[in-house]
Formats: sequence, structure tokens, C-alpha cells
Amino acid sequence: MYFNIDCSNHMKNSNNKNLICKGINSAFALLESNRFNIINIYVLIGGRADKENRLKDLKNKYSVSHLNKDQFYRKFSKGRTQGIVVEFSGKLFENILPDFNDASDVCFLALDQVEDPQNFGQIIRTADCAGVDGIIFPQHNSAPITQTVLQVSQGAFVNMPLYQLTNLSQGINELKDNGFWIIGLENSIDSKLWHEVDYSGKTVIVVGSEGRGIRQKTMNNCDFKATIPMRGKTSSLNVSAAVSAILFERQRQLNKE
Amino acid sequence: MYFNIDCSNHMKNSNNKNLICKGINSAFALLESNRFNIINIYVLIGGRADKENRLKDLKNKYSVSHLNKDQFYRKFSKGRTQGIVVEFSGKLFENILPDFNDASDVCFLALDQVEDPQNFGQIIRTADCAGVDGIIFPQHNSAPITQTVLQVSQGAFVNMPLYQLTNLSQGINELKDNGFWIIGLENSIDSKLWHEVDYSGKTVIVVGSEGRGIRQKTMNNCDFKATIPMRGKTSSLNVSAAVSAILFERQRQLNKE
Repeated sequence: MYFNIDCSNHMKNSNNKNLICKGINSAFALLESNRFNIINIYVLIGGRADKENRLKDLKNKYSVSHLNKDQFYRKFSKGRTQGIVVEFSGKLFENILPDFNDASDVCFLALDQVEDPQNFGQIIRTADCAGVDGIIFPQHNSAPITQTVLQVSQGAFVNMPLYQLTNLSQGINELKDNGFWIIGLENSIDSKLWHEVDYSGKTVIVVGSEGRGIRQKTMNNCDFKATIPMRGKTSSLNVSAAVSAILFERQRQLNKE
Repeated sequence: MYFNIDCSNHMKNSNNKNLICKGINSAFALLESNRFNIINIYVLIGGRADKENRLKDLKNKYSVSHLNKDQFYRKFSKGRTQGIVVEFSGKLFENILPDFNDASDVCFLALDQVEDPQNFGQIIRTADCAGVDGIIFPQHNSAPITQTVLQVSQGAFVNMPLYQLTNLSQGINELKDNGFWIIGLENSIDSKLWHEVDYSGKTVIVVGSEGRGIRQKTMNNCDFKATIPMRGKTSSLNVSAAVSAILFERQRQLNKE
């Protein structure tokens, strides 16, 4: 049993552990994917999800517990549930990159030690919306995939392939050997403007950690550097906002082709 | 006196109330702006900020309290402070729009009832980075400018003009009368792709609330509608990620001119 395991940033990376997923869209994305082992579905009696017709079909297929307000909020006190919480387990990420030899316009996003779970979750959501084919990240010094990450991703984790690698540089090199161009987002003197880089074909876009940027070892693998100049007086762009700017620039270029 | 007033989402909009601002960059942005009344500066003895040379100049100008670990963390238990917290008061926003008759390439961002303080703070930060000239938002049904908003904005609130209006539609109409083009970000059948809209000259970019989008009354003021098509299976873009995509598309267009 678990209670209120939200925001458990200390939880280790969570392949095959019991997790929960809140909200109508996230819950249905999870159930429709057939990727996970569904342990139980908790529905608030009279809540928003309870009134959804789609839910009626689930009752024969899965174990569904209908809880009254007291029971439901005692169990799930935090976050917006829209009256539905799915408890599940399964593989959230792979450890080996797939083969993309004959694909065109494939884009991977590589996160070099992004440590903030809010940013990680947002990036998964944005990457899904912007048609990214997978996110790769290192096993160490990276935000573990916690409940917070899943919740912030708003169900996008279900459809976005995630690859946790022991050695990120080695993974990027493998992709390079398979014909990918590697683009590092870094503000340096030899960086091109982000909209002057060509994102067509097979690309890996690398972004660094919130404080330190991309590590030198990872940077050495990059074929191009891209920068987004700041217009404000003091601010730097949040990493998830930078990811949004660059991924939709890629979409713009693909639309134009 | 106050203790741990972070995350006080219930706090009302806060012109001329005592507020705090955490972190080295935010603190210096605040102090350098000369816009606010500085009540006190709290510095953690031996902390990161304490080692900054810039701080030494402040000691003659402002009241600075040096606190040991126990005192500092009892007072400011939450969030990353980097060893400095500034207590201040002053005007965070205006209630009347400025005159922009002879300006070129001016852009306002209008938030039609964005309710989430994380999103509001992120949007202020992104807007500052993307060279927006001001953010306008309605007095009612909008996230109040709380500590959370200020903290997430990472000091960008200091330099980004904020306008809280009693009537958002009327404000947008005023700008329209002053030669601004109004662009609403909405997914509808007559929306253009976000990169096919011209953002040069005087523009207002309108985004709606997280759940309901732009209100009809506000939409009626828009000259153009822009949409960012989603590539993923289930996800919709977070409002702050959408703002980043559209504002940096504007920057791309201005760079090209």
C-alpha cells in the first residue's frame, strides 16, 4: 500500500515499481497504450471522471475502486486528479537505443543532466507535442523519473520513448555513427543562431543542466552549436522554455519543406 | 515580521506589500533597478552570496543582516536562496497602459486568465528573455502576483513591465486604437500556422487560460488567430511552452528583417 507518494523526489528511477497517474487524459492515455500493468483504478464517486462514458467500458476490463470523497482525498490529497487515479507498474524507459538506419526526419532530444523534475516533466510534454522521437538521458546526475515528472508530463510519458543510458556520450556517438547530426544548445562564440541551424533529417538536439550547461565531454560530440540570444536585462531562459523554442523551430522548418 | 511566506497563493495582489526575493541574480536585479523600497537584506554567513564581491558595496547603502545557518534556515526554509534574501515593497504592476504611438516592433503579451502561478512566473521569465515590452492581465480570475510567481520568474519581474487591468478587452481595444495588431493563440479552423503570422510592428499576442483558452469576448478583439499544431498522440502544450514557441518565432522574424 502507498499513501500520498507525490513529490517523492528521492524515489529511485522506477521501472517496474508501483506508480500512480492522475487526471482523465493521462489515465486514458495510460490505459489505451497497453504498455503497462494496471493494478487498480480509483474513481471518485460523482467526480468528473465518474461522469465520463469512456470509463464505463473499463469496468469489465480492469479492477476499479469507487471511493467516496473522504476515502479518495485521504488517499490522494495532492494534485489535480479530476476524480481518477490509476495505479500501475511497468517499464518507463529503455536502456538501449533503437536502430534508426532507414528513417528520415528523426529527432532525439538528449538531456545532459537536467536535474529539476518540473523541467524534466515539462520537457517530456513539450517534446511529445513537438513530434520528438525519443528522449535520452544519463543514469547519473539526472532527475529520476518520479511521480512529479510523470504528473507534470500530463500523460506524455506514455507515448514518448525514454532512454536512460549508462553513458550518454557513448549513446550520442552511436547515433552519430548511424547518420545523426548532433546539435548542442550552448551560448558560445562559434554558435549559430538557433533558427540558422538545419534540423531536417536525423538529428540529436542536446541541452545541458540548469546551472552548468552541457558537459565538455558531451559538447565534443556536437557537430553544430546553436544559441538563443537573450533580449532581457538579467534573465536566462529556463531549459524547458529553450527546448520549446528550438523544437518548434524544427517543426517550422519541417512544415516549410 | 513574516516567516516562510513562500507559496502563499492566497495572498492578494501585492502592490506595496512586504515581499521577499531569493537568489543572487534576482537580488541584484532588484537592487540595481532602484524601483523598489528595500527593507532588509538577509545574508547567510559563509554562503554563496556572502562570497560575492558585489555584496560588499551594498553594506553601506542598505540594511544588511548577516545570519548563521540556524537563523537563516529557520526564517527561509523553502526554495533556493543561494544565501541571499531581499525583503522589499513597492509597485509590482501598473493599472494603466503606457502610450506607444511612435514606437516600432513593440510587443505586448496579454494573458487572458492564466491561473497557475508556476505558468505566470515562467511566462514573465520567458517574455523578458524574448524581448517582450510588457505583460497585460485582468484583475479577476488571473493568478495573483504571489511569492511563487516572483520566485519562478527568477528576477525577470523587476524588468518586465506588468499591467493589471480591470477590463482586459478594453485594454486590448485601446492598443488596437493605437495601431497594434491583435493576434490570438487559438486552435480553430480559421487559424494560421504560428509561423505564418507576421509579428513585426506593433503587436499584442493573446494567450488563454490553461483549461478554457481565450474568452469569446477577448477573441472578438483579435485580428488574426495563430495555432501551433500538436504532433503527439494525447498531449496539449503547456501555456508557458506555447508562449516560448511563439515569442521566439517573433524573434526569428525580427532577426531576419
